[in-house]
Order: sequence, then C-alpha cells, then structure tokens
Amino acid sequence: MRYPGRLGQSLEEAEIDVGDEIEVSKDGETYRGVLMPHHDFSDPSIVTLKLASGYNIGLELGKDSKVRRVSEKQTKDAVERTMPVDPSKKKVAFLGTGGTIASYVDYRTGAVHPAKSAEELVFSVPELMDICDVKARVLYSIYSENMDVSHWQELARAAAEELNSGASGVIIPHGTDTMGFTSAALSFMLRALTGPVVCVGSQRSSDRPSSDATMNLLAAARLCVDADLGEVVVVMHGDISDDHCHAHRGTKVRKMHSSRRDAFRSVNIEPLARIEGRKIAFAGEHTKRSQGSVEVLDKMNKRVSMLQFYPGFEPEHFDMIAGNVRGIVIAGTGLGHVSDRLVESIDKAVRDGVFVAVTTQCLHGAVNLNVYSTGRDMISAGAVPLEDMLPETAFVKLMWTLGQTEDPEEAKKIMLSNIAGEIASRRSV
Amino acid sequence: MRYPGRLGQSLEEAEIDVGDEIEVSKDGETYRGVLMPHHDFSDPSIVTLKLASGYNIGLELGKDSKVRRVSEKQTKDAVERTMPVDPSKKKVAFLGTGGTIASYVDYRTGAVHPAKSAEELVFSVPELMDICDVKARVLYSIYSENMDVSHWQELARAAAEELNSGASGVIIPHGTDTMGFTSAALSFMLRALTGPVVCVGSQRSSDRPSSDATMNLLAAARLCVDADLGEVVVVMHGDISDDHCHAHRGTKVRKMHSSRRDAFRSVNIEPLARIEGRKIAFAGEHTKRSQGSVEVLDKMNKRVSMLQFYPGFEPEHFDMIAGNVRGIVIAGTGLGHVSDRLVESIDKAVRDGVFVAVTTQCLHGAVNLNVYSTGRDMISAGAVPLEDMLPETAFVKLMWTLGQTEDPEEAKKIMLSNIAGEIASRRSV
Repeated sequence: MRYPGRLGQSLEEAEIDVGDEIEVSKDGETYRGVLMPHHDFSDPSIVTLKLASGYNIGLELGKDSKVRRVSEKQTKDAVERTMPVDPSKKKVAFLGTGGTIASYVDYRTGAVHPAKSAEELVFSVPELMDICDVKARVLYSIYSENMDVSHWQELARAAAEELNSGASGVIIPHGTDTMGFTSAALSFMLRALTGPVVCVGSQRSSDRPSSDATMNLLAAARLCVDADLGEVVVVMHGDISDDHCHAHRGTKVRKMHSSRRDAFRSVNIEPLARIEGRKIAFAGEHTKRSQGSVEVLDKMNKRVSMLQFYPGFEPEHFDMIAGNVRGIVIAGTGLGHVSDRLVESIDKAVRDGVFVAVTTQCLHGAVNLNVYSTGRDMISAGAVPLEDMLPETAFVKLMWTLGQTEDPEEAKKIMLSNIAGEIASRRSV
Repeated sequence: MRYPGRLGQSLEEAEIDVGDEIEVSKDGETYRGVLMPHHDFSDPSIVTLKLASGYNIGLELGKDSKVRRVSEKQTKDAVERTMPVDPSKKKVAFLGTGGTIASYVDYRTGAVHPAKSAEELVFSVPELMDICDVKARVLYSIYSENMDVSHWQELARAAAEELNSGASGVIIPHGTDTMGFTSAALSFMLRALTGPVVCVGSQRSSDRPSSDATMNLLAAARLCVDADLGEVVVVMHGDISDDHCHAHRGTKVRKMHSSRRDAFRSVNIEPLARIEGRKIAFAGEHTKRSQGSVEVLDKMNKRVSMLQFYPGFEPEHFDMIAGNVRGIVIAGTGLGHVSDRLVESIDKAVRDGVFVAVTTQCLHGAVNLNVYSTGRDMISAGAVPLEDMLPETAFVKLMWTLGQTEDPEEAKKIMLSNIAGEIASRRSV
C-alpha cells in the first residue's frame, strides 16, 4: 500500500516508490534499504525500510529528515503484491490465519497489529518465491487465542483442498499461542496426506530486528518442496541461534517458552527433522507422502474440558464442569494422580456418561495408574490413562474422538490407538 | 519389625536376626546382604535384603530356598530403630509426611505401600547417622496428592519449631507429586529461616534397585549440616546418573517428568546449588541463615483456583468457578493471553472482588500483557500479570496473600513483591 497524506506526498515529490532502494538521513544517521509498503495501522509519518540484513526498521520522518532514492525497485511485482506464477516451481499453498508472523509493529506505539492478507506476509519474505510457486489465501486474521474448533475445521478443509488440487505442501502462518493445539487438531482431522502441512509462527514480528519469521517461513517452504513427508508439523527455530529450524510432529509439540524463538519443543520424542538451509535431516520414523486424495474427518464435539489437578482441588468444581461436558481431560500429578476426594467425582462423572481421560501435568513422561493405590482407584472409577500423550493433544483428540463416535467403548478404543503419533511407541528414559 | 509367621520361625531357628548379614540360596543363585526389617504390608513369605550396592531386594523364601547367617548385625541400633543420640553432630530434624521416599514395595503384588514412621525411612539409610544427629518425627503419612492447605500449615509450624529448638536444618521426606506446591507454600509461610528447610523425595522407593532415596536424603542432610542457607529448597537428582543432586529454590521448581529421577527442574533460574558428595557448590545468590527466631505466617485462604486457558474455553465455566472463590490464577497462552470472550468474564469477576492473576502455561519465560491488544484488554479488565512466576507458585502465593489481607490493593502489592525468590530478578534469555 502506498504511503498516505503528507508523507506520501513528500515521497512522490522525491520520485520515490515502494520497492525503491532509498537512503534516509535522520538525527545524524543514515539508513539505507528498500522502502516497504505502508500498512493500514502504521503511523502515517513513519516509513518502513527493509535493511540489507533482512530486518525491517521504522523511521519517523520529521522536518530535519532527508530521503533520497538510490536505485529503482528491483522486485516491483513482489512489493506491489501482484502474485507471480512460476510453473517451473512446485506449488505451495499459504493459508493465512493471523498471529505475530503476519503482524507488524506500529513504531509509534510499539503495539503489534495483524496483517490483513497472506500476501502481505508472503511479500515481506520475497525469498519464498525463489523456492516455490506461492499460492496465498487468507482464511481469517485473528490472534490465535481466539481460535476455536470451527477455525480448525475450516483450516483442515482448506488444506485438503489445496493438496488435492496439486499443492506440494501447505504452509499455515499461525499465531504461536495456540499453534500446538491447531497442529494437533489438523493431525487428527487430515488423513492420507499427500504432502506436509506446516504450521509456522514467529515469536518476533517480521518487521522487528531479530524476527524469526523469515527463517521459519523459508524452512517451512523447503520442507514442502523437498521432503517426502505426509504429516502435520510445526516448524520453528531449533535454538536461539539463527542457523536451523526444527520440524516437530503436530501431536507432540508444545510452546514451552513465552518469548524465546526456540519456544516450541517436541515432548517425549525427538524433533522429526532438522532444517538447515537446503538440508533436511530426519531424526527417526516419519510418515511419507500418500498417493491419492487427502481425506478430511473434521467432526468434533466441542463439549470437552481440560483441567489441571492441584492440592486442595475442590471436587464440586469438577462436578460443575462435568455436568456441562461430554469429556474431561485431567492433567494429574506425577503418574496421573488426583486426590482421593476427586476419585469419587470421577466415578460419578463416568457413570453419567462423561469420558474422563488422564494425562500428566509433568508433561514429560507417561502416566501409569497401576503403581499406587490412588491410580488403581482412578482406573476402577473409569478414568482412562493416556500414556505419554500431552494434555493439550489429549484435549483436542477427545473432542475429535467424541465427534467420530458416541459409543463409550469405541471412544476408549480410539483414544488408546496411536492415530497421529500422539502416543510415542518408544519413550525416552 | 520382626518377620511374622512361618518365615519368622525359620529365621529364628537359624538364629538369624534383623540386621544380620545373611546369605540366601534360591533357584541356583546366592544373594548376600543385610536382613532388613519386615514391614506391615510386606508379603509374609518375602525377606528384604539390603545388598552391598545399597539397593534392597525382596526374595520369596520357598521350600528349596536356603538361608544362613554370615555375621551378626553391626548396626543393631539402627535396624531396630532405637534412636541413637550423638551430640557431637549437628541436629537435623526429619518431618515425615509420606510418599514414595517413605514407601516400600510389596514384592508379590508390585504395589507400593507407605511406611508408617519417619524412623522406618531414616533407618533404611543408616548412613544419615554418620552425617548428623537425627531427630525423626512423623506428622502424617499420606500420598502427596492428598495434601492440602492444613498439611502445609502443620508442616510450617513443625519446621519452625525444630529450627527454633536448635536444629541445623529440617528435612521433609515428601511425595514427589505435589512437592513443588509444598515447597512454595513453606517458602511463603516461613520467614527469617535459621537453616535450610529441605523437601526431599524419591521417584523409586528405597527398596527398589535404582532407588534415588539414599542419595537424595544424604545430599539433603549434607545441605542441612554444611550450608549457610536460610531458604526452603527441593533436593533431588541433578541428572539420571547417580553422582550429584540439585537444590532448587522452593518457589521456582516444578516436577517436569512423571518418572525420571531428575524430574525436578528449576524454571526460569538455575538450580540454587549442586551437591556432590561432601561438596556443595552454590550457583548464584541465595539467602543465608538468619539469626534469632523463625517466624511463621501460616494463614491461607483456601478459596483459590487455578485454571489453564485453551482454545474454545467456555466463559461460563470460568464464571462458575469465579462465583465460588476469592482468587483465580490463569495459566494463559504465550505471554499470558486468553480469548476475547474470556476477558469479559475476567472483568465481571474482578468487579465481584475476585483476584485474577495471570501466568503462562508455557512455564518458561515471563508474561507480558502490554504487547498485544488482548493483553491490554486483560489489564483493563483488572487481571494482574505475575511476571515469570510459575502457575503453581502463583496459586499457592495467592492463597497465602489472601490469607494475609482482604484488601485488593494490598493483595496486588504483595503478589507483585518478590517475597521468596518467586519472581526472578534477572531472567534467562
């Protein structure tokens, strides 16, 4: 988008266009870079410059600032967002959902705003177009904490559609807050994947120094184009350096840090793959691309809750929730325990037809309700222990399972089957 | 306790006493070790042998088994549980609460039973008496998932009493499941500590091979005797080898694995100290022993809940809980977020006088509600973000804070003050 108002006028007078390489002199410093498009929410007196380092900065142009054109734009199409088509490259579909990776900073307030189109995102990383034939599509643009079952369903259907119409892979730029929930949901909903479905986020928005958006997106694209992979994964920084990403299995990944770029970690398994530049190294077994059509099983039962047990947990609170849902995932202590008092509530809930599943709040390791008498009492009450499944994955899987069947025995069978790698066959010590 | 029934008779006939070194021949194998006392819950046909390696095994004595005495008991007092007094050593108080560390295995069923006395525990590790003058006392013997505010209060008072009557430190053998909650509770309740208060557990009971009970207890005793430390800590294995323990600050520690011996991890700080044999290496700042009397501030308000936000979280569930409590700790996503729909419920709860605190379910890293509009809306609704405090620590602290004051502003001030190291002044990247 062109710059508005007085700033737009000044740029026009200096014959400067979005995409040109320019030089801005301000407060005795000189900044050189490519003029990036204006965003709706950006302050109208600030220009965004993409530096040679790949990072964007925002500069307020005041009275004493000078700006001059160094050279005309090289990547006119990219910056102006006309989607180029390159049939010599493999097609990768981008499904925009919102989140930091599709956000930018208002340099005056420091606040982060969502970008409104997948194109905005894709064009901030023009290198993507060197890797693949980009097909971008915006499903919605929301903070991921506002995502819901219906958004997962829409995503699953769109991803299958893209794969079934020839995309080599699907990239889902996504807010990191609930990305692990989404990747788990897609893992259960999508079957016989003909290519990777990659959820990718960033912990720092793309116009901030130290943004991880570019590297994560490029690694995701590389995976879609080069890997023989038919799984839902999350691709994020592998550590705090900028040299490699990890691809995590969608059902075994969790956001384990509120701000680090390597916030996402595989739990109870190793990351599926390490992606460094063009090199993709798989660590262990993974599902290869299927032939034929991707299948979508997107029915979900929303009436599922998740709760963490803690000392003194009031059974009445459990009863209140249980009265309103069809399934509850408990994150118990240690091997999956709750207090004796809560066992009675579990018993009652199960008798009322509520599916009560048990995971561990430790996150790492498996539950085992056969070691202590508490656990055995929980089993007798009808609680179903879910081995080393993450509480969040169990929560999503229970919604999905109760969407597939209403029969308690059938539901139990599904919950205990390893459908999308959610139960690690071999556990780390 | 002596062995009962037929087995007891056979041992008596062979002039074998608890504490003797014996040799058992069974199925072509010969086992040599010290005969350990019988426990109430043990199978009456099984003898427990402490091997030279320090591990205990259970052997069923059948018709073809032979047993003979090798030498008479050396540590008669220890095994028979007459408490020796050694005024030349520093006094350390052991406050028994139950848990795996004070449990033993029924070798027939494989089930774990709680020991009934702290003496039982202490005497299974007689090396403790080489380090300190042991004063053991049983407060209760329960699985830690059944612990409650009243147990924490009893513990706090007993720990203060022991320190105020001359103990160099207090060791609390504890079930690992909720040990992090207890250590946090004691951290807030106990002030001006004249010595360390050490919660110590084990992930494998003391009569199993690979038990971590002995090393953890010895490290705890070493800390009580040798360290200039006036804090509540958790002492557990530092990694899966058997060579060192870590002492974790009571407010920054969490059980992060359901079964590994190094399950306890410091979150957002380094472990306070590394204990290897007699060597104690502190990693950073820690509070030294106080002079004078230990103070107990044990008032708690039990009406506090903790809940994890997840996509699709029903505001009505929040409203139901909020209607029943004085405080709620939310483990939000990422920097502490919840959905827009839930912000309205927070607003209502705060107006109704409920203290709503915000932490992150990522566990690592701090919350920050100033970056995204969701967070700013949460602040406007009256939610109080708690920096890098663990959700579990925040839950305990909120109970404690609302026990100290009913004034919302005063409560907020306390919650945001760093009282027992629960807010790391400098965060790891």
